[in-house]
Amino acid sequence: MLDFPLPNSSKIAPLTRRHRVPWGDCDPAGIIYTPRALDYAMETLEVWSRDTLDISWLKLHRELSTGLMTLRTEIDFLSAPTADDVVVLELRVEKLGGSSLVSVVSGHDGSGRDYFRVKIISCLVSIPEHKPKQFSGEFRQRILAYQATCRDNN
Amino acid sequence: MLDFPLPNSSKIAPLTRRHRVPWGDCDPAGIIYTPRALDYAMETLEVWSRDTLDISWLKLHRELSTGLMTLRTEIDFLSAPTADDVVVLELRVEKLGGSSLVSVVSGHDGSGRDYFRVKIISCLVSIPEHKPKQFSGEFRQRILAYQATCRDNN
Amino acid sequence: MLDFPLPNSSKIAPLTRRHRVPWGDCDPAGIIYTPRALDYAMETLEVWSRDTLDISWLKLHRELSTGLMTLRTEIDFLSAPTADDVVVLELRVEKLGGSSLVSVVSGHDGSGRDYFRVKIISCLVSIPEHKPKQFSGEFRQRILAYQATCRDNN
Amino acid sequence: MLDFPLPNSSKIAPLTRRHRVPWGDCDPAGIIYTPRALDYAMETLEVWSRDTLDISWLKLHRELSTGLMTLRTEIDFLSAPTADDVVVLELRVEKLGGSSLVSVVSGHDGSGRDYFRVKIISCLVSIPEHKPKQFSGEFRQRILAYQATCRDNN
Repeated sequence: MLDFPLPNSSKIAPLTRRHRVPWGDCDPAGIIYTPRALDYAMETLEVWSRDTLDISWLKLHRELSTGLMTLRTEIDFLSAPTADDVVVLELRVEKLGGSSLVSVVSGHDGSGRDYFRVKIISCLVSIPEHKPKQFSGEFRQRILAYQATCRDNN
Repeated sequence: MLDFPLPNSSKIAPLTRRHRVPWGDCDPAGIIYTPRALDYAMETLEVWSRDTLDISWLKLHRELSTGLMTLRTEIDFLSAPTADDVVVLELRVEKLGGSSLVSVVSGHDGSGRDYFRVKIISCLVSIPEHKPKQFSGEFRQRILAYQATCRDNN
Repeated sequence: MLDFPLPNSSKIAPLTRRHRVPWGDCDPAGIIYTPRALDYAMETLEVWSRDTLDISWLKLHRELSTGLMTLRTEIDFLSAPTADDVVVLELRVEKLGGSSLVSVVSGHDGSGRDYFRVKIISCLVSIPEHKPKQFSGEFRQRILAYQATCRDNN
Repeated sequence: MLDFPLPNSSKIAPLTRRHRVPWGDCDPAGIIYTPRALDYAMETLEVWSRDTLDISWLKLHRELSTGLMTLRTEIDFLSAPTADDVVVLELRVEKLGGSSLVSVVSGHDGSGRDYFRVKIISCLVSIPEHKPKQFSGEFRQRILAYQATCRDNN
């Protein structure tokens, strides 16, 4: 069981990150190289876990021999940002199972233009055996609180 | 219309690449960082276009103002390679539409262990307008020849 | 000659960026993979050009067929950050020549621990000929103003 | 002390790798993004250690709690390859100290055009203390054999 000393769930707010596309993430066609969208999405999932849930992947790994393993991703590319464009990244939790998590990271320009939408299906696992573990205790409560908060904000 | 001076289609063989996972593509858990699978798959699509079809993306871009835009990807992560592991990458064409291409890149260890399977749905487009273009002439014939060759090899 | 419509030089302030090391930038030893330090430094140079000087590399490239080409870099690795560590990035201009620029990006933890120091020697060039161009007009004035500001702050 | 079961030193040959620059390593100016040169050089050092010396970094790390820490790099950028260009990578050992190693990775096009030259100064260290360790036994002999072989080939 995971027992993380977590702050009060009531402080949880929907995550929004702003990422300005760097020159080096763009290809000779002048737009972001396709795989970078998955980099942005995975980093958003990591930031969400660390800053919103207060559970960093490094701590999870080192102190609890636990990791969030990606099982599947689906990416829809809707339009391509170029260097200097700001990508607004948002994460919502679509579904929380016993040991599975379905999250969706969307990237848009903040004024109605969608860049991409990334669905990430993950599984909480023990390290290094990669056996499924339950989202329990405060970990589960925090994710559920996040889901509720996002729902209220829509 | 695309008219590329291409060699005889009969020389086309199924593409297989061997990629040894470098240290820097692995994360603190010791396995490849999730997004690198999409990097490997996209690079396989690029190599296939350049070396198998003899149509490099750079030439396509510079000489024909044309690009292969990714519309959607689906990745299934089946097991995770670590540093030094060899990933055998193979590409097959699932479907060729008028201007769309569905390709599947699979990564395995060469002896029955699957690492990942990446479906890439692309669209041939004009640059910079991003308007769909038809796969025509030798471009289409080559892709169809590749499909036929892969079928014969199974 | 470069003639960029630039805001008043008096608003220039020393650049400081905070970058939290993501999980995916770290290697199986748990520290950032060596080359990422150069990524952070180059991105700092890019951000400085865009946000401090108000000259984005994309605009420089597209509107003036000009680029900042790297001639040489020297990196000293002093200690290695791990995932979740905040790297404070600062840039100072060591020397501005006719068409050359020597900048130093340092990365530290904000409380006395140095991570790395990257010297970048660049040359302003025409694209695609890669012929040296002069830093002139507002471009030069802005860089000199930045140098003066950093000097005053020390 | 490091005692690796190594094959006979007489089989050591100068390392040469061929790396075709992928589309995604190039920037909107159409040339490789500067930091990628350091990626190529570090990967060459890794391949040299694993394939030429038969000492993989992963094994070094896992079985001997030892790592090759980079202290300093110096990169000279001589000309910039574009997508599809083949970069021929070669490594020579400039100096082997007690626990330090100075290696130089050069990248060229195979017909007289130099792309970059990367000097990497490394130190063999214990993990996680990062205390210097001696290159000893077969590890040292293999590196010295490599130096001698490269000398004979010039």
